[in-house]
Amino acid sequence: MTERVDKHILKNGMVLVGEPMEAVESVAFGFMLPAGAARLAEGCCGAGSVICDWIFRGAGERDSRQLGDALDGLGLHRAGSVGSSHISIGSALEAENLADALDLYADIILRPQLKKDQFELARQLAIDSVHSLDDDPRQKVMLKVREQFYPSPLGRSTVGDIEELKALTAESTRRIIKENFNLSEAIFAVAGKYDFDAVAAQIEKLFEADGEKPVESAPLGAKGGAYTHLNNDGAQVHIGLMTETVKPTDEDYYNARLAVSVLSGGMSTRLFTEVREKRGLCYAIGARYHGLKESAGIMCYAGTTPEKGQETLDCVIGEFDRLSEGVSEEEIQRAKVGLKSALILQSESSSSRAGGIASDYYMYGRVRSLDEIKNKVEETSVDSVLKFLRNNKFEDYTVVTIGPKEVAVKKL
Amino acid sequence: MTERVDKHILKNGMVLVGEPMEAVESVAFGFMLPAGAARLAEGCCGAGSVICDWIFRGAGERDSRQLGDALDGLGLHRAGSVGSSHISIGSALEAENLADALDLYADIILRPQLKKDQFELARQLAIDSVHSLDDDPRQKVMLKVREQFYPSPLGRSTVGDIEELKALTAESTRRIIKENFNLSEAIFAVAGKYDFDAVAAQIEKLFEADGEKPVESAPLGAKGGAYTHLNNDGAQVHIGLMTETVKPTDEDYYNARLAVSVLSGGMSTRLFTEVREKRGLCYAIGARYHGLKESAGIMCYAGTTPEKGQETLDCVIGEFDRLSEGVSEEEIQRAKVGLKSALILQSESSSSRAGGIASDYYMYGRVRSLDEIKNKVEETSVDSVLKFLRNNKFEDYTVVTIGPKEVAVKKL
Repeated sequence: MTERVDKHILKNGMVLVGEPMEAVESVAFGFMLPAGAARLAEGCCGAGSVICDWIFRGAGERDSRQLGDALDGLGLHRAGSVGSSHISIGSALEAENLADALDLYADIILRPQLKKDQFELARQLAIDSVHSLDDDPRQKVMLKVREQFYPSPLGRSTVGDIEELKALTAESTRRIIKENFNLSEAIFAVAGKYDFDAVAAQIEKLFEADGEKPVESAPLGAKGGAYTHLNNDGAQVHIGLMTETVKPTDEDYYNARLAVSVLSGGMSTRLFTEVREKRGLCYAIGARYHGLKESAGIMCYAGTTPEKGQETLDCVIGEFDRLSEGVSEEEIQRAKVGLKSALILQSESSSSRAGGIASDYYMYGRVRSLDEIKNKVEETSVDSVLKFLRNNKFEDYTVVTIGPKEVAVKKL
Repeated sequence: MTERVDKHILKNGMVLVGEPMEAVESVAFGFMLPAGAARLAEGCCGAGSVICDWIFRGAGERDSRQLGDALDGLGLHRAGSVGSSHISIGSALEAENLADALDLYADIILRPQLKKDQFELARQLAIDSVHSLDDDPRQKVMLKVREQFYPSPLGRSTVGDIEELKALTAESTRRIIKENFNLSEAIFAVAGKYDFDAVAAQIEKLFEADGEKPVESAPLGAKGGAYTHLNNDGAQVHIGLMTETVKPTDEDYYNARLAVSVLSGGMSTRLFTEVREKRGLCYAIGARYHGLKESAGIMCYAGTTPEKGQETLDCVIGEFDRLSEGVSEEEIQRAKVGLKSALILQSESSSSRAGGIASDYYMYGRVRSLDEIKNKVEETSVDSVLKFLRNNKFEDYTVVTIGPKEVAVKKL
């Protein structure tokens, strides 16, 4: 694993981080822009989806068609996503095309054309995407459980809200872009094959514009209800569950990650063996750590039949609760091996690493090397995980179900 | 890109192929077993899903729990899938654990315990998975269009059929495993960091068992109807479309791939610009080449609103038809850059390469190097693609829709 981390900060505050990878011919880059769903004012839920589409519909001197041609001409594998804190846009590509790609992305971020007719198309597609969640209850239940679990607006839907999308105008959306594409809080990450001096010089030249004053965070409001049921007459029930745990910056973060790995991730983990393998309750089940800078939780999905819904939920909550009663040395060892093996696979993907170092910088103000993460995982033990679990008992669960039948969330 | 391809054939006919990758610490391996959905007798649609679960519920001396513990103890990232021709099972992992993992997989393939109580659980989960397709109309429409498009049984559902799953017994499923886990037609692939001599010696020792007589292929039957509508009262219409094209072994295969890349894959491609960007008809659209050994097609998905369903389908078919009228030099150049860039990214993933070389061996009887594929892509031209399109006009379309409203498939 590589140890080198490249770093450079522009005068306006924009951060560049890089992780060189040996023996790859590809490079991946990404821009994190502080325009995530929770950063926007009340009433414009879904603006991020519109923006991610609209800014690619013409930028600089190129109209929508010309920009698409230019991007495809470089063989970009584009990725874009709207998160709670940021909009992330980037690509993986052949290393030799990196400089040309960055020129295009500077246009897209700094000089999008933002034409009104293109806005209408982008907004309509965003509205259609929200509607399409009705046919994707698995994704919908997880969006909804985040919304209910996190104090408002942290869990705000990253896909959008139909009424608020309808109320958006080209003018109001342009204003969001102007205010939230704030370079002083932007992070640029690159991983794979690149020359950092050249990249830094180019980014400096392209993005030397003034930063704005920091994007203000809205004060946190209340959490949603403990149990929400969305009725549909499908043949399944989709269960989303979250419970609070320590944040990524907490000293117990790695203990929390180990605890989640005892619950879920492999064939020998508790949710898989107890819920799926032994009792055949679920066709799909999984839990993972979900951390924002302000708050964090463990998130669980289970898909089952309406008849088995109640037993599945009881069983899942039972496994969460039972965790602090004891974990075995073998479980911790397997969890460690699993986490380290995942690190090795990530270390070989330029896209994974570009995403990882950018979010590290946002979360920690620095990039953790893979060796550091590996060592931190190694330092955990049965004792440290159990101590963490006992000091941080799962106190309550936020549950959302989508299906033909409600379940009862038992009081603890 | 690497040029070396490792190959070894066991006495019983089982094939080993390998592609070493420089500077990675991971290795990925996969077994292709001739037990795909189209290889099974009538009446056991879904047996593959049951088998993929059941064989992991105890093997050799280990019961289900012990096997799960052992697999997770090696940090395996498991992958398994049921295709038309094969069941594929494998993993990505840290290179040093490869030998231990292969020992476990030999147990799973040759000595699964196949206990009856575990069968019932595996079958029930398979049934639940079929039910769950009702909540995943996007996947369901693509399974259904394959079923209608390919001559029976090639397009048989790889997920399963409820009634046929209910009729399966532990005994009948054991017989399928015995007959179809035929080593003389099995392919083993490894990519990443490995020592081929050591792997070959180990596989030889583990899998030296006799091969059986070849698995007989069922004679091909009729194709399904040209248009199938599955009614549901969702807010969207999901359109699946397929049309016949040349097989992977055809000399025009690369021309077909280029043609599909002009239609779909980037922001400048025709389906994206015409259907999504200009007219805002779809929130999701994409087409790809789908090739079996016996037959091949171009497969297209579009997700839109019921009101826009007809216009979307007309527009998609219009773009397919219009293709043979002309493609530009720029379109071909961009398609080439896109395909080559995808090759580079694949070449850096051990899992992609293990999957790629195994399916190459099945399809071509040999492994194509990435350089060979790159050169073949490079050799295509506007002329060769147009000539291919004119000699292989899209003659008819198999269409499936899921939604509240039918569409009309216009006669050509």
